[in-house]
Amino acid sequence: MKPLRMLPLIYYLATKGAMQHPIVLTTVELGKELKVSQQTASRLLRQLEGLGFIKREAFKRGQYVILTDKGLELLSQVYVGLQKVFGEVPEVLTLEGEVFTGLGEGAFYVTREGYRSQFIKKLGFEPFPGTLNLRIKNINGINTRRLLEHYQGIEIQGFSNGLRTYGPVKCFKAKINGKLDGALLLIKRSHYGFDVAEIISAYNLRKELNLRDGDLVHVGVRVKTVEA
Amino acid sequence: MKPLRMLPLIYYLATKGAMQHPIVLTTVELGKELKVSQQTASRLLRQLEGLGFIKREAFKRGQYVILTDKGLELLSQVYVGLQKVFGEVPEVLTLEGEVFTGLGEGAFYVTREGYRSQFIKKLGFEPFPGTLNLRIKNINGINTRRLLEHYQGIEIQGFSNGLRTYGPVKCFKAKINGKLDGALLLIKRSHYGFDVAEIISAYNLRKELNLRDGDLVHVGVRVKTVEA
Repeated sequence: MKPLRMLPLIYYLATKGAMQHPIVLTTVELGKELKVSQQTASRLLRQLEGLGFIKREAFKRGQYVILTDKGLELLSQVYVGLQKVFGEVPEVLTLEGEVFTGLGEGAFYVTREGYRSQFIKKLGFEPFPGTLNLRIKNINGINTRRLLEHYQGIEIQGFSNGLRTYGPVKCFKAKINGKLDGALLLIKRSHYGFDVAEIISAYNLRKELNLRDGDLVHVGVRVKTVEA
Repeated sequence: MKPLRMLPLIYYLATKGAMQHPIVLTTVELGKELKVSQQTASRLLRQLEGLGFIKREAFKRGQYVILTDKGLELLSQVYVGLQKVFGEVPEVLTLEGEVFTGLGEGAFYVTREGYRSQFIKKLGFEPFPGTLNLRIKNINGINTRRLLEHYQGIEIQGFSNGLRTYGPVKCFKAKINGKLDGALLLIKRSHYGFDVAEIISAYNLRKELNLRDGDLVHVGVRVKTVEA
């Protein structure tokens, strides 16, 4: 609950556009909006920055303020929370991304027995050894990717084989280009940011869908887990 | 912004179920959740009640707390606000309600020239003199009806004819039972609550759709205004 304390101001900044781009703020204006003194407005922004929810930069007549990943994370959490209380969790979210060649470690991870056996059991297919990496280029897609963190997915548990510890992976069943079934992976501790989606499938997606780097791929992500 | 100050606690109560039904709370638990003292938790609940966001009732081992219409109103506003910042405003919302016979004043209002001429101009049809009243029975439908207040609709302006002042009406184009076009009206100062939807159409909907009191009607409400 503690981080929620800053929700009103973070929400306010988001409605002013600070989710997409730096907005210009003066503490005088902000004070008026919040019905608090300029000093209090200034202190609130300082707190928000101290907690890592915003980045800001002073300039002559005011300051630029933009929400950080942590700020967007809080908004995403609350947004999905509200979808739940309003009974409006979507069944399918859609994403588009451009194919790119990763560092090649996808195949390594997917073929670890600790993961592989869980993929077969929980996703219902044996994955082709490799991931299809997509870079999401539009802001709505990146937001959607961000929201996925807060939906219930299919949990692949982490494990240790004595030599190394492998982290947990959250998956969502997905339809690739409206044709082939697969899954989108949210890999914890991934070195990729929120603009990357990693896809696995029983198929060699690059080959079956005739994909090259730079091609646009459409992913329909199933987020509503069927109630048992 | 001022009412937003209470958003974190209202959101928290909603995630605990207080949107649908009274939840049992003790100030000890709440203090733990909020990481504040029991006294502060108690004071926050008192404030929330004083501002009209919750109703509560003490019983032996704690208190029942439920969000009021005003509390739900704030959540609805923030939820729709977040849909906007996440670029996820839906195009169509769906509602279902049971036909009931109103007090008969629908025909009177719809035929006032000040409204009638605006309906023709802004909705593109001359309404049949009468409204189809639907009572929404399920909680998700009532929530949807509540959310409509926060979407941009088609504004029918209020007017005065010298004898009386007629209030503004917000409309949304709608498809009735997937067949006939019409509009859903959000009548300000209506004596109906959030469980009633009033529909107009160029058609006599009761006749064309062969409806009787108690019949279930499906309404697809178009909420995303096409950008000019």
